[in-house]
Amino acid sequence: MEAREHTSKVAVALVHHPVLNRAGKSTTTAITSIDIHDFARTCAFYDVAPVYLVHPAAGMRALVRDMTDYYLNGPGGDRNPDRREVLKAVRCVATLDEAQADDDYRLWYTSASAGGERLAEASDLLKTKGKHLIVFGTGWGLDVASMPEPNGWLSPIEGVGMVRHLSVRAALAVYLDRLTR
Amino acid sequence: MEAREHTSKVAVALVHHPVLNRAGKSTTTAITSIDIHDFARTCAFYDVAPVYLVHPAAGMRALVRDMTDYYLNGPGGDRNPDRREVLKAVRCVATLDEAQADDDYRLWYTSASAGGERLAEASDLLKTKGKHLIVFGTGWGLDVASMPEPNGWLSPIEGVGMVRHLSVRAALAVYLDRLTR
Repeated sequence: MEAREHTSKVAVALVHHPVLNRAGKSTTTAITSIDIHDFARTCAFYDVAPVYLVHPAAGMRALVRDMTDYYLNGPGGDRNPDRREVLKAVRCVATLDEAQADDDYRLWYTSASAGGERLAEASDLLKTKGKHLIVFGTGWGLDVASMPEPNGWLSPIEGVGMVRHLSVRAALAVYLDRLTR
Repeated sequence: MEAREHTSKVAVALVHHPVLNRAGKSTTTAITSIDIHDFARTCAFYDVAPVYLVHPAAGMRALVRDMTDYYLNGPGGDRNPDRREVLKAVRCVATLDEAQADDDYRLWYTSASAGGERLAEASDLLKTKGKHLIVFGTGWGLDVASMPEPNGWLSPIEGVGMVRHLSVRAALAVYLDRLTR
């Protein structure tokens, strides 16, 4: 995809490496098509762009481009123009550094269990100068020990029920809804 | 699944019939496994139960029960106890009436374009006596002309971007997050 001007103040990255597996070890997950569609749609709805999909495997990134190309330039987009529109914001990158090279982003990590210092609410971001990149992890969450130091963390979404984690698709929707609330 | 006491004040229904297709005609959609998992997880996170999956085809409901049984009683749940826990709240019913027979619910419909009278905010529900059933449509939304008169509608989620619809999974997450905000 060619370069484009980004006018949104907030961008999102979905990281597939380095993330943790259920045993707490560093791993790589596969990109799933439902994450691509839900991330692209939710971000477009809240005027958040680009949507960086971070994956180290060139073959996986090529697979995503084949899929999105079906909508961006193929018959999928003729049948479903909405999907064509929202998928324009998707960028496949090998590393988070590559996303950061794209713009002067402040980096905000998300976690279901973040605590301590440098916690921010999503609603603080739009009040803060500059551009912001909210980073989500797949699998059992970001392997932050292997990642660049962030500007800070978004406060975990607190539930009232018995499970501690939302799906990453649900967490994205809640954080972006809170941007302006 | 055997009957259980519901202590939650809010329940959710995901309707696959009657819903609209892209041409605005009444149709039936397939239940997708990602909707089951995301609905079950998000509802458990926000202490919302049961999660009614409304589908008129007995074969489709049987397929869902086979899938959930893999987690509730099979090896899927041994490997992923969280998923076992959250899927306990899933109920397959043939019609919305069947869900309503389960408890004395006030019925709230959702739509990306509802307007007019009897609009409520999600945050009003917990302040109102009784139990509430929030109803989501798949496809191009609920075919309300073929459905029972609701108590009212939840105000549409307003985006700031270029698309008018969130995925039903994202809309669920946003509405439930707003219940207590």
